[in-house]
Amino acid sequence: MLPPQTLAFDADRGLSERHIRILDAAERVFARNGFHVATMHDVAAEAGMSPGNLYRYFSSKDAIIAGMAERDRSLIAADFAALDPAGGSLMDQLEALGRRHLVDEPREKAIIALQIWAEASRNPEMARMCAGIDSTVIEGLAAAVAGAKASGELPANLDDGRFLQAIFMMADGFFCRKAIEADFDAAAAADTLFAAMRALAQVMLLPSNGGPAS
Amino acid sequence: MLPPQTLAFDADRGLSERHIRILDAAERVFARNGFHVATMHDVAAEAGMSPGNLYRYFSSKDAIIAGMAERDRSLIAADFAALDPAGGSLMDQLEALGRRHLVDEPREKAIIALQIWAEASRNPEMARMCAGIDSTVIEGLAAAVAGAKASGELPANLDDGRFLQAIFMMADGFFCRKAIEADFDAAAAADTLFAAMRALAQVMLLPSNGGPAS
Repeated sequence: MLPPQTLAFDADRGLSERHIRILDAAERVFARNGFHVATMHDVAAEAGMSPGNLYRYFSSKDAIIAGMAERDRSLIAADFAALDPAGGSLMDQLEALGRRHLVDEPREKAIIALQIWAEASRNPEMARMCAGIDSTVIEGLAAAVAGAKASGELPANLDDGRFLQAIFMMADGFFCRKAIEADFDAAAAADTLFAAMRALAQVMLLPSNGGPAS
Repeated sequence: MLPPQTLAFDADRGLSERHIRILDAAERVFARNGFHVATMHDVAAEAGMSPGNLYRYFSSKDAIIAGMAERDRSLIAADFAALDPAGGSLMDQLEALGRRHLVDEPREKAIIALQIWAEASRNPEMARMCAGIDSTVIEGLAAAVAGAKASGELPANLDDGRFLQAIFMMADGFFCRKAIEADFDAAAAADTLFAAMRALAQVMLLPSNGGPAS
């Protein structure tokens, strides 16, 4: 599925202003029409260019989706890389990072994520693309948690695996709710998510030696 | 795949054997093709009937989806209604109920749920249908938690609202993962979800009088 454009984009790292304009336009079109219904013509019109010109940048809808996913992945990776153990509480930094992605982003982002997940559930290529983003998030979370354990901010016997899986499921569920419910209160739900994160970080512990799993 | 409650539901709701066969066929077709691509002809073929005959039972794909949702809603409501405070730990009963829906159901159910959520994110009619199911789940959970608080099984100062929202987000996230990841370990993820549920039930408490929210 990965077309030459994507490879060029990967090698090049930086997205041209035109690529960015197209991806932004595609996000609006996909959120409005669903990307099953949306056409390359719709995206071209939204981006204010001719279809022929659009095809010079992205060869297909799938290439656009891959470009959107890669852009998001890069931004997320950069956000996690910016977490700094020397900069105070890692849980505070993690919460601030999470709120930016969960609360500050427009609802359209959540709608697109849900459309892509739905497609990924039946399309192995799209599932691999999602897995790439998920790995970036999980690795970033895992590094932050490891740092917080090392500094004593989190309990040394925190069950990282379960803790991260629980947080990850909540974040996915958050996106679902934000996409589905037009009147979703993202700030309040984020309060819940981060209260749960902090609570679980204190009690989701590894079983003590020889003891049963909690 | 259908639990015994379905038979009671048939009798109660007047859903004919033919309706059930169509809904089952539609679930398989929608999971396989996505319901955007699936046609009434596909459903008729899978159900082993003529399109003309199918239209006597359901007038449209949307009517089939509404039928599927109503069937699920009724089953979930019946499951929650069967929780019995006199029958021992409500959290144990809730976990058993949850595992039936999260683990025992085939992956296709999660894929369909994700397709419907994606549709609901852009279709207010579908969003209302989802909200109906969500209300049934939330009300069932809330009643179980209230019962467990009344019996002393859960802390009297448990913050029900946040606790339920956290559980609900995790369950939604669980469905996403099950739908997206072909090799998803549903049993292990359910272990995480219910460990988190039990942990949060002990620590996600209302702020003490005059104190700050935890």
